[in-house]
Amino acid sequence: MRAAVLRDGRMIVRDDVPEPVPGPGQVLVEVKACGICGSDLHFATHGADMLAAGAELEGVPDMDIDLAGDVYMGHEFSAEILDAGPGTEAPAAGTLVTSVPVLISEGGIAPIVYSNSTVGGYAEKMLLSAPLLLPVPNGLSATHAALTEPMAVGLHAVNASRIEPGEAALVVGCGPVGIAIIAALKLGGVETIVASDFSPTRRELAVTMGAHTTLDPAVDSPFHQCRPSVVFEAVGAPGIIDDVLRRAPAGIRLVVAGVCMQPDTVHPFYAITKQISIQFVFGYDASEFASSLRAIAEGEIDVAPMITGTVGLEEVGAAFGDLASPDRHCKVLVTP
Amino acid sequence: MRAAVLRDGRMIVRDDVPEPVPGPGQVLVEVKACGICGSDLHFATHGADMLAAGAELEGVPDMDIDLAGDVYMGHEFSAEILDAGPGTEAPAAGTLVTSVPVLISEGGIAPIVYSNSTVGGYAEKMLLSAPLLLPVPNGLSATHAALTEPMAVGLHAVNASRIEPGEAALVVGCGPVGIAIIAALKLGGVETIVASDFSPTRRELAVTMGAHTTLDPAVDSPFHQCRPSVVFEAVGAPGIIDDVLRRAPAGIRLVVAGVCMQPDTVHPFYAITKQISIQFVFGYDASEFASSLRAIAEGEIDVAPMITGTVGLEEVGAAFGDLASPDRHCKVLVTP
Repeated sequence: MRAAVLRDGRMIVRDDVPEPVPGPGQVLVEVKACGICGSDLHFATHGADMLAAGAELEGVPDMDIDLAGDVYMGHEFSAEILDAGPGTEAPAAGTLVTSVPVLISEGGIAPIVYSNSTVGGYAEKMLLSAPLLLPVPNGLSATHAALTEPMAVGLHAVNASRIEPGEAALVVGCGPVGIAIIAALKLGGVETIVASDFSPTRRELAVTMGAHTTLDPAVDSPFHQCRPSVVFEAVGAPGIIDDVLRRAPAGIRLVVAGVCMQPDTVHPFYAITKQISIQFVFGYDASEFASSLRAIAEGEIDVAPMITGTVGLEEVGAAFGDLASPDRHCKVLVTP
Repeated sequence: MRAAVLRDGRMIVRDDVPEPVPGPGQVLVEVKACGICGSDLHFATHGADMLAAGAELEGVPDMDIDLAGDVYMGHEFSAEILDAGPGTEAPAAGTLVTSVPVLISEGGIAPIVYSNSTVGGYAEKMLLSAPLLLPVPNGLSATHAALTEPMAVGLHAVNASRIEPGEAALVVGCGPVGIAIIAALKLGGVETIVASDFSPTRRELAVTMGAHTTLDPAVDSPFHQCRPSVVFEAVGAPGIIDDVLRRAPAGIRLVVAGVCMQPDTVHPFYAITKQISIQFVFGYDASEFASSLRAIAEGEIDVAPMITGTVGLEEVGAAFGDLASPDRHCKVLVTP
């Protein structure tokens, strides 16, 4: 079968990938849509650095990946059931499903994110874990269902902030993560959602997705223009956290959802003087993932404006390049 | 009257300080004891840097201090009422009191911490605000009552952590702030209190004040020896926060109570991967201050082992020097 894989830092298409065989508790699915995540772009360019940083880190499992081999990716997928493994109870063939990107097998639990062996959503077919499957309800389209995962990231960040509807939120950065946070804030009934981004296109999308006001940080400090209780950092570049600590009002809660891979300089003195809390967030839990699917399927979050492109497997490499320019795209879907 | 003041980076004694005159709502008190705080040492050595860092900081009032003039200090005091300002209701003369270090006057509210004009506790007499006075109960001594302020700092850090008795706490650094945190953890019934410090003397004091186990970080990572839910950073030196982020278990709450004045390098990737929260804390509120005094006066916290020296005003300069070596001292009190 065909799959787009990372080889020597570039996405190429292979047509000789063996079709995976579902084991007990697994299903074989046909991928209908899979979103390209910023973390995929980052892994493609800085995979070695990410693996090195992960290896330094105590208390979390190592990522066992060989960059000399092909790497499968794609963790924001919707798919149709084709077949189930031996003795496996699963939805009927043809059912559209999504799932948290985790594959349970006899060997253990593997994330479906970057792997030399576990095929992800940039492929014609892949394996999923039957107990984790969520059938897509309400006739929701496969492309929209593929947004469940990135929208769950926003929902998790908002849940972690414990924001109340009456508290003002500032979202710094309106890429896919920032937009997912804005949508989740709107879903939570937050009455003042301010979004900051250099790009006019992104600021416009922020308004479409629920922001009440947008700011251009090139013109003036966001904190001269609003007084948030909660600040969401969704940029992930060095210097942003310290800038927030220096400029924000005392007592804010800062939720860091942008994944800054480089070392970063902060002034603890700023944060101490203002008694700021910083909650670093990552991913979501199974219940947040299910809530995300439900909110999209019920029409409470309209993800259509986020989808700015659809490509085939052959175009994944080019799409990785296009996504580097923030003005052109929010979410590009691969439809194998 | 006499007072120890900061002049040209050194503590000197003046005997020509005008005796302050209490205005409406103020009392004149005779200082009985005043603790030397690490922040006083830091201000004496790095005052210009602290003022510069404060000036950069938006959203908090500037410290309006001229380092070319004498600076009064001393914010951990107990004192006896001498006189009250016009029309001021206050405890009877001779009453031993303490107070949050804030002076309310017609001109506004001034912290009693570093000032060219508001006299602090390194003086024979000072002014306090009648509405903020707490009479010292139970015949508690003036020296022990002077520990109310630093112990309130520990209580505030522990309250901010929302630690439950069944959660394990690791306290990194057993200087006065770390010791105050340990005492507050014990007061809160926390069942596993682990303390880490390079100094054997400080580790011994940590046990006396409530730590169940102590560790020498020179021997091994604290996180190889315990698995805390909450980590208190009470060192305030660059590198500690990142070391905790790298080595700690996933999901810990990190409470930063040590005041690191320098820029510090962190890896947001470490904190994001582990979904760590960092609560920066500073000071206490009026209720925590009152709880601290009550706990000391009721014998729930015995501060006696923390007091490692008592000096007169003339010896403040020498004591500032002595306190630089962590093995010799925890808390030195000035008894003017």
